[in-house]
Amino acid sequence: MTHNKINFGIMLHGAGGHMNSWRHPSVPADASVNIAYNVDLAKRAEAEGLAFVFVADGLYINEKSIPHFLNRFEPLTLLSFLAAHTSKIGLGGTVSTSYSDPFTVARQFASLDLLSGGRAAWNIVTTPLEGTAKNYGRPHPDHTLRYEIASEYIDVVKGLWSSWEEDAFVRNRETGQFFDPKKMHRVNHHGKFFTVEGPLNIQRSPQGEPVIFQAGASESGIHFASKYAEAVFTHIQDIEGAKNYAKHVKDGAVAHGRSLNDVKIFPGINPIVGRTKDEAEEKFRAIRNLVNIEDALAYLGRYFDHHDFAQYDLDKPFPELGDIGKNSFRSTSDRIKQEAKEKGLTLREVALNETTQHGDFIGSYDEVTNRIIEWFDKGAADGFILTMQVSGQGFDDFSTEILPRLEERGYFDRKLHHNTLRENLGLAIPSNRYAEKQQIVAA
Amino acid sequence: MTHNKINFGIMLHGAGGHMNSWRHPSVPADASVNIAYNVDLAKRAEAEGLAFVFVADGLYINEKSIPHFLNRFEPLTLLSFLAAHTSKIGLGGTVSTSYSDPFTVARQFASLDLLSGGRAAWNIVTTPLEGTAKNYGRPHPDHTLRYEIASEYIDVVKGLWSSWEEDAFVRNRETGQFFDPKKMHRVNHHGKFFTVEGPLNIQRSPQGEPVIFQAGASESGIHFASKYAEAVFTHIQDIEGAKNYAKHVKDGAVAHGRSLNDVKIFPGINPIVGRTKDEAEEKFRAIRNLVNIEDALAYLGRYFDHHDFAQYDLDKPFPELGDIGKNSFRSTSDRIKQEAKEKGLTLREVALNETTQHGDFIGSYDEVTNRIIEWFDKGAADGFILTMQVSGQGFDDFSTEILPRLEERGYFDRKLHHNTLRENLGLAIPSNRYAEKQQIVAA
Repeated sequence: MTHNKINFGIMLHGAGGHMNSWRHPSVPADASVNIAYNVDLAKRAEAEGLAFVFVADGLYINEKSIPHFLNRFEPLTLLSFLAAHTSKIGLGGTVSTSYSDPFTVARQFASLDLLSGGRAAWNIVTTPLEGTAKNYGRPHPDHTLRYEIASEYIDVVKGLWSSWEEDAFVRNRETGQFFDPKKMHRVNHHGKFFTVEGPLNIQRSPQGEPVIFQAGASESGIHFASKYAEAVFTHIQDIEGAKNYAKHVKDGAVAHGRSLNDVKIFPGINPIVGRTKDEAEEKFRAIRNLVNIEDALAYLGRYFDHHDFAQYDLDKPFPELGDIGKNSFRSTSDRIKQEAKEKGLTLREVALNETTQHGDFIGSYDEVTNRIIEWFDKGAADGFILTMQVSGQGFDDFSTEILPRLEERGYFDRKLHHNTLRENLGLAIPSNRYAEKQQIVAA
Repeated sequence: MTHNKINFGIMLHGAGGHMNSWRHPSVPADASVNIAYNVDLAKRAEAEGLAFVFVADGLYINEKSIPHFLNRFEPLTLLSFLAAHTSKIGLGGTVSTSYSDPFTVARQFASLDLLSGGRAAWNIVTTPLEGTAKNYGRPHPDHTLRYEIASEYIDVVKGLWSSWEEDAFVRNRETGQFFDPKKMHRVNHHGKFFTVEGPLNIQRSPQGEPVIFQAGASESGIHFASKYAEAVFTHIQDIEGAKNYAKHVKDGAVAHGRSLNDVKIFPGINPIVGRTKDEAEEKFRAIRNLVNIEDALAYLGRYFDHHDFAQYDLDKPFPELGDIGKNSFRSTSDRIKQEAKEKGLTLREVALNETTQHGDFIGSYDEVTNRIIEWFDKGAADGFILTMQVSGQGFDDFSTEILPRLEERGYFDRKLHHNTLRENLGLAIPSNRYAEKQQIVAA
């Protein structure tokens, strides 16, 4: 059973979350397009008992993008490939609701879910990067509109996922009856943004529907997460903040008629561990030294509508930016501005801080193990998504040193007990939207 | 080497091309969603030396759809899964240019191509089924407009596939240089239907770009095929017709400045073979007997805008339909009307004929082997796509009886010699659109 245990997922993001992770000797420099490396990592994660791998995404790059964003596998194709090499680990991937069609996306995730035996998860993003509009020839919707679109979109997709009841496909060779038309349902959606008739041309999987991941941090994002998400990622790096966030999301879920167990909180952490705290800090510095200041400034610009920070003095206080960044990664840009003001940071400090996040999980093996347990026990996390700064060393250390300690203390099983992601995460199978209605009528 | 040899592909379409193939004892009834069955068939096809598997697609179903269309895997996810289970066979799939975004589709095929080591092919369809519009909330473009959209679409996609030159990713850990900005290119497309800046966020594969498949049969379709397609499917069932078609397409290719070797003709055939012609005909009748007349009429309606044929007398001449069917599967509906008139067929005969195609490839092992060689030698085909009526028996017989005969006569190698689809089909690697320009400038 998975109750009382901590779930982990790991992000597959090439050489790592650090912008210059590809320079680190512990990973292949081409990790983001190295299929053997991705297969190996997914298999190791499964063998260690991690609940899922997760592939983030983006739809616009330019010269200033961080290197592994320039050249990487597309999530659905990568996850389908990994599905064939694994049998129990969940397969989560990002697709934007602002730049896709609900019929197509409902189908591709349903297909991944079915061919993996019930292991798919869809991470819903609304796409903050304005440049994306240039690759799709349509105006970039603003923050509020993006969430309005996303809400209608997910409603359509979940409707399509209910197109067929479990026992709709009779396949009686004697009578020639292939399916029961009463168990086929059309979503017949006519909304503000989408018109979709249905039905979807694929059945449900052993876990009913793909799991819904989401990572909204703004108020609209949290509202969306409370209503729809089943696993919520957060970048909050302090335990009190994470606890408040978790309570906020879960209270919201209850207000939407959901149960506390219907939504799991997964802070993203990037542990760097060593035999001593000093050894861990030394590893941290080695990673931070992979970056030069020009790259750091360009990367910072990404959160501020690609603002050119090279124009400022590096060692003067972080510049006043006014409204720049308001319509992009709003929660991140607000945080950066606020921290810079509160701590009186220079531009150089802000830029380097953003390239190499320090956070709460750098320390000795026992310190980090304790920290993880503390977050879990205090309700700041149901599990964690590992967004390793450097995938090689980061996951090597974590699997060798931290997971065994957590297992020893009864907080983790280095073994997946179930074949579907929902079961491994302790999430219920969603009822079929239309079958449920029939039951109510029959009662 | 593959010259002078016949290439084969096989369609993965569940239990088979026959509408009631799921009732045949030689295949699982749920073949279209049975992943183990699909893996097994792809592996067997690879072991036998077939050049590719191919997944057709559709984006709209209703109660009258043929059974395996109701519930099937989505092509890109299925092919990515199969990529992991195979190492040499090509992986072709259908995606519509009328109901998708070029940036997304360019990426997904490039990703499949890269993770499979250079084995992807994109079958371009413009989507004849009008009902599709109901699942995508936009008007269904008419025949001419669909091809106009498709031409601009493929131009954008091929531009995106040239985003990165082969040696663009330097990944020099010492200097910190990840890529050479001079070898990154933007398509910067501003057209009638699409606006796409680029670059694409994934590199080229070992075969350069995915192979372009196409199956247009109308004049606009043939024009499109001549200009862009590298492997062209045709449903023509007589050798003279196929020969004329091949000449027509290849002449067109030359007129577009391409070489005769740049486009390969693949008639779709569904051989049914036996020790004698009688045994083959008996197998044919067993398949035809799987269908009842109500299903046959509903299926026929699919080619005529879902026209209700149940209103007519079954044993009277095929009804006058006027313009019905003009905007859907035009070439098929025209053929059906013409054949009915020429041969004086009743509605019952037309309907049954359409459920179970007879064609030129039913006969004894030697007859069918000879027929295949004749088509190839006379220039009616560079290869064939096997669209088996019943995948189980059909491919069992073909691989056991026909392929060894073809091999014995020097027309086929039961072994793939190369790791990329282009090499196995004898197609050149396309030049990078932008790198080529630089060479001209430098010359």
